[in-house]
Amino acid sequence: MNDSRERTEQAAPIGVAIIGAGYWGPNLLRNFMKNPGADVRWMCDLDAERASTVIGRYSRIAITTEYDAVLADPDVEAVVIATPAASHAPLAVAAMEAGKHVMVEKPLATSVADGRKMVEVAAEHGVSLMCDHTYCYTPAVQEIRRLVVDGSIGSVQYIDSVRINLGLIRPDSDVIWDLAPHDLSILDFVLPEGLRPTRLAASGVDPVGAGHACIGYLTMPLGERGLAHLHVNWLSPTKVRTMIIGGSEKMIVWDDLQPAQRLSVYDTGVDLSVQDDDPDRQRELRIGYRSGEIVAPALPETEALGSAVAEFLASINEGRSAATDGNAGLRVLAALEAARFSLSGGGVMTPIYNF
Amino acid sequence: MNDSRERTEQAAPIGVAIIGAGYWGPNLLRNFMKNPGADVRWMCDLDAERASTVIGRYSRIAITTEYDAVLADPDVEAVVIATPAASHAPLAVAAMEAGKHVMVEKPLATSVADGRKMVEVAAEHGVSLMCDHTYCYTPAVQEIRRLVVDGSIGSVQYIDSVRINLGLIRPDSDVIWDLAPHDLSILDFVLPEGLRPTRLAASGVDPVGAGHACIGYLTMPLGERGLAHLHVNWLSPTKVRTMIIGGSEKMIVWDDLQPAQRLSVYDTGVDLSVQDDDPDRQRELRIGYRSGEIVAPALPETEALGSAVAEFLASINEGRSAATDGNAGLRVLAALEAARFSLSGGGVMTPIYNF
Amino acid sequence: MNDSRERTEQAAPIGVAIIGAGYWGPNLLRNFMKNPGADVRWMCDLDAERASTVIGRYSRIAITTEYDAVLADPDVEAVVIATPAASHAPLAVAAMEAGKHVMVEKPLATSVADGRKMVEVAAEHGVSLMCDHTYCYTPAVQEIRRLVVDGSIGSVQYIDSVRINLGLIRPDSDVIWDLAPHDLSILDFVLPEGLRPTRLAASGVDPVGAGHACIGYLTMPLGERGLAHLHVNWLSPTKVRTMIIGGSEKMIVWDDLQPAQRLSVYDTGVDLSVQDDDPDRQRELRIGYRSGEIVAPALPETEALGSAVAEFLASINEGRSAATDGNAGLRVLAALEAARFSLSGGGVMTPIYNF
Amino acid sequence: MNDSRERTEQAAPIGVAIIGAGYWGPNLLRNFMKNPGADVRWMCDLDAERASTVIGRYSRIAITTEYDAVLADPDVEAVVIATPAASHAPLAVAAMEAGKHVMVEKPLATSVADGRKMVEVAAEHGVSLMCDHTYCYTPAVQEIRRLVVDGSIGSVQYIDSVRINLGLIRPDSDVIWDLAPHDLSILDFVLPEGLRPTRLAASGVDPVGAGHACIGYLTMPLGERGLAHLHVNWLSPTKVRTMIIGGSEKMIVWDDLQPAQRLSVYDTGVDLSVQDDDPDRQRELRIGYRSGEIVAPALPETEALGSAVAEFLASINEGRSAATDGNAGLRVLAALEAARFSLSGGGVMTPIYNF
Repeated sequence: MNDSRERTEQAAPIGVAIIGAGYWGPNLLRNFMKNPGADVRWMCDLDAERASTVIGRYSRIAITTEYDAVLADPDVEAVVIATPAASHAPLAVAAMEAGKHVMVEKPLATSVADGRKMVEVAAEHGVSLMCDHTYCYTPAVQEIRRLVVDGSIGSVQYIDSVRINLGLIRPDSDVIWDLAPHDLSILDFVLPEGLRPTRLAASGVDPVGAGHACIGYLTMPLGERGLAHLHVNWLSPTKVRTMIIGGSEKMIVWDDLQPAQRLSVYDTGVDLSVQDDDPDRQRELRIGYRSGEIVAPALPETEALGSAVAEFLASINEGRSAATDGNAGLRVLAALEAARFSLSGGGVMTPIYNF
Repeated sequence: MNDSRERTEQAAPIGVAIIGAGYWGPNLLRNFMKNPGADVRWMCDLDAERASTVIGRYSRIAITTEYDAVLADPDVEAVVIATPAASHAPLAVAAMEAGKHVMVEKPLATSVADGRKMVEVAAEHGVSLMCDHTYCYTPAVQEIRRLVVDGSIGSVQYIDSVRINLGLIRPDSDVIWDLAPHDLSILDFVLPEGLRPTRLAASGVDPVGAGHACIGYLTMPLGERGLAHLHVNWLSPTKVRTMIIGGSEKMIVWDDLQPAQRLSVYDTGVDLSVQDDDPDRQRELRIGYRSGEIVAPALPETEALGSAVAEFLASINEGRSAATDGNAGLRVLAALEAARFSLSGGGVMTPIYNF
Repeated sequence: MNDSRERTEQAAPIGVAIIGAGYWGPNLLRNFMKNPGADVRWMCDLDAERASTVIGRYSRIAITTEYDAVLADPDVEAVVIATPAASHAPLAVAAMEAGKHVMVEKPLATSVADGRKMVEVAAEHGVSLMCDHTYCYTPAVQEIRRLVVDGSIGSVQYIDSVRINLGLIRPDSDVIWDLAPHDLSILDFVLPEGLRPTRLAASGVDPVGAGHACIGYLTMPLGERGLAHLHVNWLSPTKVRTMIIGGSEKMIVWDDLQPAQRLSVYDTGVDLSVQDDDPDRQRELRIGYRSGEIVAPALPETEALGSAVAEFLASINEGRSAATDGNAGLRVLAALEAARFSLSGGGVMTPIYNF
Repeated sequence: MNDSRERTEQAAPIGVAIIGAGYWGPNLLRNFMKNPGADVRWMCDLDAERASTVIGRYSRIAITTEYDAVLADPDVEAVVIATPAASHAPLAVAAMEAGKHVMVEKPLATSVADGRKMVEVAAEHGVSLMCDHTYCYTPAVQEIRRLVVDGSIGSVQYIDSVRINLGLIRPDSDVIWDLAPHDLSILDFVLPEGLRPTRLAASGVDPVGAGHACIGYLTMPLGERGLAHLHVNWLSPTKVRTMIIGGSEKMIVWDDLQPAQRLSVYDTGVDLSVQDDDPDRQRELRIGYRSGEIVAPALPETEALGSAVAEFLASINEGRSAATDGNAGLRVLAALEAARFSLSGGGVMTPIYNF
């Protein structure tokens, strides 16, 4: 965005409209309502009753089914879009062309072409286009990023993520498009250079006849010798939310379902030790705990979406890009599009367009 | 094996020699010593001191470094081989040609060709050739097999296995050859028709410069719409031993590190429910807990290796094949060999020879 | 309450005022707002700003610092009190004397005398007096009650509860008065005859100089041979919320921090087996798993406080006592008062007045 | 013991006899067999067949049913007693009077009088009398002791221990005498001045008609303001082995069933902060995480009993008392005897004789 375009009247709260009263809209609404820097003016949904239910009986917030009315309201400076993914691009483009800042639920769009269009329009109109990569704003991911960026864990050697549970089979997207954006956006956020794989392979199956993959695996080489692997699954009886980040110096295990110890940092690494001085014997490498100690860093218990909302508002007030801006959304989209291609080709390794 | 060749003197314990005093040999020794149907006569290792240490100061068991002496002992009816994999085939063939029954540590051999030779020699000489697929004899796997075979969980839709921890990087094999035999042998044991995938893809990396993959992922289509996926890893800071078996009627989670509840059977399955009668809306499938109930079956606390030893002795006494005979070992080898090919080809989907 | 006094205009929502905008008030507010049977008219707190913050910027709910104004509002039929415990009795009595139904946060009052007064006034004025024993409305406790009442677990032999974590040291009550009401109200709810211990012993310490016990243990004989034991603790580094209910036929473990399996029912009981027929040897009793199976019943994921609010509204509409009425609160108070006496006497066994 | 009496022939292994082939004897046997400093000469049990089974078919160790023969063997320097508790005193005294060093399974004896006699005889004959308080030799307890002794956790404010599971109901002792010796010996080992409570209260019940308590709770004041509390239980469907050691600076949680993280040290303590400067308001103390960090120290995976055996042998070779000598056993006995008195008096606070 045009960094010169800093908001002059920072004292006044930013007028906001929430679009979409489905699954995620109420969470966005609640977090914008809590932020004193926002003034929520509209809840907009094609279904007026759903919008009405979401704001509740005691609210002064206006509801509408008319998106044009929202865009026409000069007090609306920012539009927050939580509608089905296929509508993200047209709704966001219209809002940005009306001079509004836009926050979009993930994924940014349903194609790289659409996503690129959105990024261009944002640049053209000098507005903030933020993709709601909520997980990037969790204290756990913020800490992981810090540990990666400051070199604490050494170079990242591999990442293994498991995001599985029993859930609703979405009619409009496969499990990879539904769940992998979380992991891809986290990788983009914590890796020193962002999500820059050059290729990936995706496999998936639809054992229940849903019409698209309900279980998916993604494999992405990282650098010369590393690997990221994602497992996403709507059919798992147990819920797992675990990510291992293997570094050359330390390793991190993030178990998001353990509130008392979400992050564990293991003082672990490779010791190249020849275990026998007989040259005829092959050397053995021992991967050892350096000290064996595990440290679980302190994490604040803040709601990630509240921090995401604050970042969006700050990007507007400070006339800068959000931490997870349109380009971040676009990098995730590129990986998703490559996964779609790979999946249709039976798991073939597929190049990823890099931005 | 030649089923007519039943052992006549069943009353007398079977004379046994243990070959190899490395990592696994002591466990085999201990379990054969506990079984009253065996008479352990020899502990044989090229390193006499190692053999001596393994039997201990108080033992009457003879040690030797001479394999030929073992084979020449007419009181030795069975030879138990726990040496490096590359020596399995020559040692086993020599023993079987000397008329001895053979139990071999996994993997059966280092190539399908060698394994097939072993199976042929066993048939020719009418001896029992058993592969020590220890996990198949755990109460958990025995129960899983029962639940699959009796139809309790419906048809198997997918299997996801994670077998990871921080360990010794073996000099003579990659992580797939080291750890995946466990999972492949379990699949062979619990699937109604054994391990019959037609193809697989393997990816792996060596981030630490060990000379071969230290992290590996295997993907195997199961039937028309199913999938088995294995994750094996020497570089994980946490130990995980979990297998999910998704069935059309129920799902099983096996967590081998939870002694109080290793198996959980979820009354879970797909309910195809149209969530909206508006024909324009796409149907949504809800994967639901049928009743929501979880049942953890009772499992005896028996040592798997003790049961494996008992099965080997029974196969000799009853003149029959062991439950995990040479052919089972061969099916696992075929998958491993396909994995080796796929890995070297960058993860290409590779056909598996089926026996 | 006077059961004849059924509410005639059941169609109209019940006018409600929330008193107290501290820790618990916002939760009550949110749940009453969600219930269509309630019409929240007032949020009342001595601190207007706190009340204002709690309702938020977008709410139409009126705030006030004048309790008299609330009582004077004829549209207020029910008053919900979430103020410090010492004010429960005067506020509740005033409301009931003004003809209002009353829901009070636990504990009912700070003395049995006050609690009894409240119960009498409720009876006199024919209003519903409910104590907010929230845990009794969790799906887990409802299921435990069912398993106890229908005889599934046999007779209750012992109950062991641990409710510990690191928290705020309250200035106005010790840890027993703060946390044990949860456990005591659960016992009152699930035991077939309610909380009817005849005596108890309490021990506690104040290692940090807080002025009252921060760690407490309560021991209450149950029947002839049973026992209930509670551990409450503000100084534990880990959070534990576990209750074991030992029955003669089955045993229940409730681990409230395991959302995927809060309740486990063990098919376990005593087998009186003489292990040796030598009459000189003492018999050994084996407490065994009958079948060894664990069953985790399905539990809905409903918010307990929402169910408590529904029960309060239903008690008003149906002119009946609430499931956790003033008498339930009084039984809990009697135990707390005995605990206070025992604690001051160094853990002496103390009789409990029974109602 | 007489410290001047150092063993002269340290090079030769110490001749050992194991008395008792019941539950614990085989474990002692195995660990003495593994230690090169010991020469196991006898396995002695009244039941020759049981002794024979324990040593196994391949052993050169002699068995006997004659205790006198063991004592008469001049090559036996040390006797290891793992018989029912009631026989500890006579067997140990006889051995010590025959000049043998003695290691006794816990509890040291069944009365303080017997225990004191044993300690006196040991002193008189200048032999090592060690009580097998195995848990004191676990890496976890060794580390706890270090953290307490070096001041890392500040002063010990409270200890809460839970040792419960479903097990055999012993005919000859209640659950307190069976399980609490573990906890009492640990307290004796880790507390800076040993187990020095001045009084305790014990409550217990026998809901199944076993003839003595199957569930027990012990409460012991520690110093002026501290407390130790033990829960031991044969009737719990789940196994729990957890001890919390609350210090003024840090807190330790020891969960013995979590092999990957048995010890967690919480940087936690009391911050006395007045939360409001209004003098009319009472101050609130916040017990806070100082930094919030959890550190899990590295622990070696050694077998505790092997270390206990090594300590016993070292005490003989070095002519010194063992770390858990007869006096340690006596302090544990004193607490057990007070518990017996308290239990019979319905939980009355009972003084403990201190040595």
